[in-house]
Amino acid sequence: MKGAVLDRGLRAASVLRRPTPRAAGPDAVVEEIAAALDALHGLARDRGLPVRAAGVVVPGIVDEAAGRAVRAVNIGWRDLPLAALLEERTRGPVALGHDVRAGSLAETVAGAGRGARDVLFVALGTGVASAVVGDGRVVSAGGHAGELGHVVVEPGGARCACGGRGCLETVASAAAVAAAYTARSGRAVDGAAAVAALVARGDRVAREVWERAADALAGALATATTLLGTELIVLGGGLARAGGLLLDPVREGLARRLTFQRPPAVTGAAFGDRAGCVGAGVLAWRRADAGAVAA
Amino acid sequence: MKGAVLDRGLRAASVLRRPTPRAAGPDAVVEEIAAALDALHGLARDRGLPVRAAGVVVPGIVDEAAGRAVRAVNIGWRDLPLAALLEERTRGPVALGHDVRAGSLAETVAGAGRGARDVLFVALGTGVASAVVGDGRVVSAGGHAGELGHVVVEPGGARCACGGRGCLETVASAAAVAAAYTARSGRAVDGAAAVAALVARGDRVAREVWERAADALAGALATATTLLGTELIVLGGGLARAGGLLLDPVREGLARRLTFQRPPAVTGAAFGDRAGCVGAGVLAWRRADAGAVAA
Repeated sequence: MKGAVLDRGLRAASVLRRPTPRAAGPDAVVEEIAAALDALHGLARDRGLPVRAAGVVVPGIVDEAAGRAVRAVNIGWRDLPLAALLEERTRGPVALGHDVRAGSLAETVAGAGRGARDVLFVALGTGVASAVVGDGRVVSAGGHAGELGHVVVEPGGARCACGGRGCLETVASAAAVAAAYTARSGRAVDGAAAVAALVARGDRVAREVWERAADALAGALATATTLLGTELIVLGGGLARAGGLLLDPVREGLARRLTFQRPPAVTGAAFGDRAGCVGAGVLAWRRADAGAVAA
Repeated sequence: MKGAVLDRGLRAASVLRRPTPRAAGPDAVVEEIAAALDALHGLARDRGLPVRAAGVVVPGIVDEAAGRAVRAVNIGWRDLPLAALLEERTRGPVALGHDVRAGSLAETVAGAGRGARDVLFVALGTGVASAVVGDGRVVSAGGHAGELGHVVVEPGGARCACGGRGCLETVASAAAVAAAYTARSGRAVDGAAAVAALVARGDRVAREVWERAADALAGALATATTLLGTELIVLGGGLARAGGLLLDPVREGLARRLTFQRPPAVTGAAFGDRAGCVGAGVLAWRRADAGAVAA
């Protein structure tokens, strides 16, 4: 887990990183989040900075309005009133958020999506997640919105962890790209970054795997644009670190598919893997300001 | 065009219908809308009802916030400041809206979607249009959101009016269903309602055409649900008048496709072809209330 003490300009005064004790179960993870918040409070105190509020963002299905971590397969909690639990532990206001939606908030408030109102923020990592921003607001739908990774792009295709077949995640996640290269070449590879490096060096199999992933992504993005009227697509997560190698074929695949739609710009994320952390800071400041108005 | 004098409970005191002079060009249509508003003002006056505001909803790309009719292929206007033009003509406040988004507003405020916060309202008519409601708000995206009819359901399929191929509209609009039946059977048919009647009577070709349409619709709805976290799908427009004949296979096709997603309820629209008119009334009352607050 990552944490930071962020000023109102979202600049980090202190940063904290520690492992998430997933294997020890959900209660241990909650304890560790509380301990990390304590440590961040301490870091702020050391620098003479008053803490106004905390923002905590987690993966899975999160109901921000209710402050509940509804479900996270990786962690194992179910319908946990996480905001209230952490407020009790830290005796301060805590805003709960979703990691990817918070990332979209960071990017639209202060990053690559600044000023845009209709944005799709995509996190291409082990899985594929996204956050929908419509009319300037992040759409949560009780935590259920934004599952771009499970849009079907190859009907009847590979089995997905969700139980479906041919989901985008089975083709265009960093994990899927690495696995597809290994399956086709017989050579083990150290993640999608290594496949990207092979593409740049002209490896034929790597190029085919990469093109298939970028084209599947472009297809899902075209569908999302058609439904949502997206004006800007921000690609983040490990796979997006490939820059133009990913952005160019995605832009091309999108342009090929769209007809009458307003064509969205496609860009890389500004905050990289810090987007969730910065977004948690946005949530914390909003919570602090809401508290100030209420008081 | 349809118009009505609606009280705060959205009950119609008077209703007006007159043809839209499309062939006479966009200016004539604007004149006719203004004349219809004058006529409705007269009807209200006759009954001693003070008119607080007007709501006007039109097809195409509509930017509600700016009061502009950005584009409508059927009518021919381009970036027209329609709300301002009509306010000048009628000397009263006019809220401009989009026909399908206004329909979704009618259904969520007072119809089949009452109380639901994450809704997809689908109008299955000559084309297929939809409106996205997320976190209780209609998403406009400057008028570009909700083009469900142009989600590709049969890659490389039939040419669509939009220039693409295999769009939902080429398979599951009322027009496409009637055309597909005629193409396959060689028999002319009076619209999708006649095909529905043939399905009910056990006609094999009609059943195949119908099943293909319902299944394509279910596929597009599954994608929309995955992206939007939809909790309720409201089907309206001519094709939805078939009731269970459409709702049942759509529900079945949706259930077959969804895995981890929150399964949305699927229901028919409450207002039928009056949804846009009632939604215009919702917009008018909101405009009246906003004006009262501002004054």
